[in-house]
Amino acid sequence: MTVLNFDGIIPPIPTPFKDGRLACDHLAANVERWCQSEIVGLLALGSNGEYVYLSPEEKLKLVATVASAAPGDRTILAGTGCESTGETIRLTRACADRGAHVALVVTPCYYGGQMVPDVLIRHYETLADQSPIPILLYNVEKFTHVNLDPPIVARLSRHQNIIGIKDSSGNVAQLGAYLNQVEAGFKVLVGTASALYPALALGCDGGILALANVAPHACVAIHRLVRRGDHEAARQLQLTFLALNQAVTARYGVPGLKAALEMVGYYGGEPRPPLLPLAAADCRILYRIMADAGLELEVPA
Amino acid sequence: MTVLNFDGIIPPIPTPFKDGRLACDHLAANVERWCQSEIVGLLALGSNGEYVYLSPEEKLKLVATVASAAPGDRTILAGTGCESTGETIRLTRACADRGAHVALVVTPCYYGGQMVPDVLIRHYETLADQSPIPILLYNVEKFTHVNLDPPIVARLSRHQNIIGIKDSSGNVAQLGAYLNQVEAGFKVLVGTASALYPALALGCDGGILALANVAPHACVAIHRLVRRGDHEAARQLQLTFLALNQAVTARYGVPGLKAALEMVGYYGGEPRPPLLPLAAADCRILYRIMADAGLELEVPA
Amino acid sequence: MTVLNFDGIIPPIPTPFKDGRLACDHLAANVERWCQSEIVGLLALGSNGEYVYLSPEEKLKLVATVASAAPGDRTILAGTGCESTGETIRLTRACADRGAHVALVVTPCYYGGQMVPDVLIRHYETLADQSPIPILLYNVEKFTHVNLDPPIVARLSRHQNIIGIKDSSGNVAQLGAYLNQVEAGFKVLVGTASALYPALALGCDGGILALANVAPHACVAIHRLVRRGDHEAARQLQLTFLALNQAVTARYGVPGLKAALEMVGYYGGEPRPPLLPLAAADCRILYRIMADAGLELEVPA
Amino acid sequence: MTVLNFDGIIPPIPTPFKDGRLACDHLAANVERWCQSEIVGLLALGSNGEYVYLSPEEKLKLVATVASAAPGDRTILAGTGCESTGETIRLTRACADRGAHVALVVTPCYYGGQMVPDVLIRHYETLADQSPIPILLYNVEKFTHVNLDPPIVARLSRHQNIIGIKDSSGNVAQLGAYLNQVEAGFKVLVGTASALYPALALGCDGGILALANVAPHACVAIHRLVRRGDHEAARQLQLTFLALNQAVTARYGVPGLKAALEMVGYYGGEPRPPLLPLAAADCRILYRIMADAGLELEVPA
Repeated sequence: MTVLNFDGIIPPIPTPFKDGRLACDHLAANVERWCQSEIVGLLALGSNGEYVYLSPEEKLKLVATVASAAPGDRTILAGTGCESTGETIRLTRACADRGAHVALVVTPCYYGGQMVPDVLIRHYETLADQSPIPILLYNVEKFTHVNLDPPIVARLSRHQNIIGIKDSSGNVAQLGAYLNQVEAGFKVLVGTASALYPALALGCDGGILALANVAPHACVAIHRLVRRGDHEAARQLQLTFLALNQAVTARYGVPGLKAALEMVGYYGGEPRPPLLPLAAADCRILYRIMADAGLELEVPA
Repeated sequence: MTVLNFDGIIPPIPTPFKDGRLACDHLAANVERWCQSEIVGLLALGSNGEYVYLSPEEKLKLVATVASAAPGDRTILAGTGCESTGETIRLTRACADRGAHVALVVTPCYYGGQMVPDVLIRHYETLADQSPIPILLYNVEKFTHVNLDPPIVARLSRHQNIIGIKDSSGNVAQLGAYLNQVEAGFKVLVGTASALYPALALGCDGGILALANVAPHACVAIHRLVRRGDHEAARQLQLTFLALNQAVTARYGVPGLKAALEMVGYYGGEPRPPLLPLAAADCRILYRIMADAGLELEVPA
Repeated sequence: MTVLNFDGIIPPIPTPFKDGRLACDHLAANVERWCQSEIVGLLALGSNGEYVYLSPEEKLKLVATVASAAPGDRTILAGTGCESTGETIRLTRACADRGAHVALVVTPCYYGGQMVPDVLIRHYETLADQSPIPILLYNVEKFTHVNLDPPIVARLSRHQNIIGIKDSSGNVAQLGAYLNQVEAGFKVLVGTASALYPALALGCDGGILALANVAPHACVAIHRLVRRGDHEAARQLQLTFLALNQAVTARYGVPGLKAALEMVGYYGGEPRPPLLPLAAADCRILYRIMADAGLELEVPA
Repeated sequence: MTVLNFDGIIPPIPTPFKDGRLACDHLAANVERWCQSEIVGLLALGSNGEYVYLSPEEKLKLVATVASAAPGDRTILAGTGCESTGETIRLTRACADRGAHVALVVTPCYYGGQMVPDVLIRHYETLADQSPIPILLYNVEKFTHVNLDPPIVARLSRHQNIIGIKDSSGNVAQLGAYLNQVEAGFKVLVGTASALYPALALGCDGGILALANVAPHACVAIHRLVRRGDHEAARQLQLTFLALNQAVTARYGVPGLKAALEMVGYYGGEPRPPLLPLAAADCRILYRIMADAGLELEVPA
């Protein structure tokens, strides 16, 4: 049985397409290369994985590919959140069958005004009761426009099959409130590299970070430096990667992340429509930011 | 061949469930009753239809049921918007096969920051090129947090297979800008009864309105009064139904709409989880609001 | 004694500066010209009057100038809202002394999270108790980020010295809710020309409109057409002026409004820093919009 | 000549009123007591000082009182930001005359849509050119709804009379971007205790914190622990005070801060209307939060 490990860095991996279809060979090759770094796991079907553009069949194939390509000591997470509770349960079970160790479950969000605490709590508790694998909450207000307030998370942390949260807000006050209020052992993971060092310094366990796809070694290094108590070095590395993280998340999104992967020698490929590939002018800006961060680039400017 | 008719009122019908499953018999009965009023069409799979909680199979079954239950002179619309362009095309074609005359296509929205004009325009134009039925744009920032600005709509109105827009903002300045900028013949439909009379007075063609499920006659009457030039009567009717509309949309959402349907003798049933049925205390408030609006209620308080 | 008249159009006049100082001569000349149209009053010290950039002394001088330059049959309003209740009372009294007939009082807003209903109600009731002139509420969330919800306005409408509201949201659902809930005789005025015709059709009394500075005749015409029942002509005029209104409010703000005034032969002058005068390129765009709306322009392109 | 010191903690002091008037004796007593802790300075006329409720005369009297009550080794800051550039210059000069060493200048904000980079840059540069004392930028989007983006701050940091920024967002990514982009020596101060430890760990110089009014020793301790490299102790102290900070800022605002001051033996008094004193039930909750944070409370529950 796999020992789950959240004490470190996990990349939320992009989904590679070729001619519009899942490119599982490229995916496997990417996974093998990511796993040469000391990341503790991989997240398939996260926001960076364009999960909203995948069919249920594609999702399962993708999870199976990642699970078989990764070494056995890495924790495999799958994003299984759907709008309905029932569909989320079904997808969670199916992903567990394909080898996912943990389900990352985004807040339902379409009817935002109705997503009051009672609704969210019942959604997650019903799911956790029926899931064969542990649940990790996923709070990403940037995309969902719903926030999991600390009292909700505190309540859910009491369920033994809900083991943690990925919070992508970058809001250290909220991360601190989670840390103060959740049950012992509940994992608090930061979901954006823009707050990685501050979040770890505050007591978060690890991070699930878009940047970790492009710069896994640097992200792992920040985590280790904090664990070792070398805050000054962690701080400097954090500041070095801020601009790049901003580029591959807020500014350029998934198209930027895929372009950046190509620059460091991974397969990136194009995003699915309606997303457009990164424009050439933006590629040049991104290349400069990558170089400024000190990454070794395999593609000429 | 069906003549499409948007010069009037269209209810975006709720999806009835029984024991968690589609209740097609109740759906057909509801459709027959709605069609006793002079609505010009019905929308299946809108936001009020909990489309985000339905599987692709359920969606098609639902469209087929509505298409066969409705008289031949009513326009059948189906909500076919998905996050990806490809999936939207597939669902649109399949719904057309099941009898939908028009596809209502919500803006993709998950990667909100990436939904820039070029992305939205390519999404809709690609779809419209490949759709066997006409496209109606669907702008509902309340749920999507994306807005179709007038210049985007003006551009899309030039595509011959994009025939109109449902705008649920209730923003009369935006409706006016659409009216000013779109091609002749492009339909502008208001998507909330809270602005029905003002929107029609301003020149909109018709409305697709949650309230029309509960009070179809009143909504049709407002439309007719405006067409006939009786603005004073239309105005009074508009004000009479404001509070009820607010209750079955913003305040109580789909759970409120389903409860309201029960009160006027339709089958409502429960929403799908994570949505919770309307709480008893809220039911009593809603009942009072219904009574105050002058509706004949079939259920005792 | 002046009979207050809100059944019509009121321009919220800009404050003219010359060499950084109040230009009272230009102000008086502008007032005289505005009053050649059939506006029912003038508002000094509104948002379009840069009231936040004026000292208390300048405010009083400005009110006195307007009051003496306007014919006796026009209602003179002065914006007297300050953050503190006490200062608002003092300024209201002083403006009354200078000839203001009515005080328009914006919601306090700096501590937005604290501006709960009880706080707002006490603020306005305390003021109304002590003001020698009637109070008109001023709701302008665009600038204040505070909204006067209909129940608050309904409550305040019961105070005999609070006689109405200017609501600049352009939200016809909210205007309708006000109309439904306020005491008889309480005036509901729309605060943006973007919603003028729809708001009047819905039952609003009149409008206080930035556009009325530049195009008073058109605004007055829309009001008259609605009163006369000629909705089609009102509707067309409304649509004709939408783009211009958008330009002199949302897009270009006070600098745009002042530039537009110059184009139609009024004194505009420059705004106070930090506002910058409208850039030359924007002036050209504005000029075209003005011409498209059919205004007679006194300045060559 | 005073040596400015921002390498530490500065409380943004509340303004004490008695019977509605400035209570300078209480203010002086409070200042003396705050200065028994090792705070490096005091800020008069900040948001916590209800500066928007004070007349210009009161502001000057308040600054003079603080300047004379504080020991000579503390940096005296005065909030001098007004909406207009001219009035800000006048108030800054007058506060400098009364003993302020530094002016903290909030972004103008009423015409939010017009507060584009060029406008903000010209505002601050004009002020800095004419101010006899150095300028500290004040970014507090919670109240102003305007944000000073990093490129604006980077540009302004090149002006020799603009020496730093207080950023109250609590957004560590933005603080990091400031640190990366500003000129050497430019001070970056965190404006909320909710992010104090993370901000200092990231490289900020100090903090101007509402919490420092109530718990100056704890805030100073966090700063020292970070400087000394004892991150674990700093982290724990940070988490201990999170709930209290949330109470005296976001949840209860100035009324809560004043009530909290009373509980620890300072003079608090009532806020100015329209703010209402903290309700009794909320006082009890606050008392419990204060006790939980381990503060010595002078008032029985």
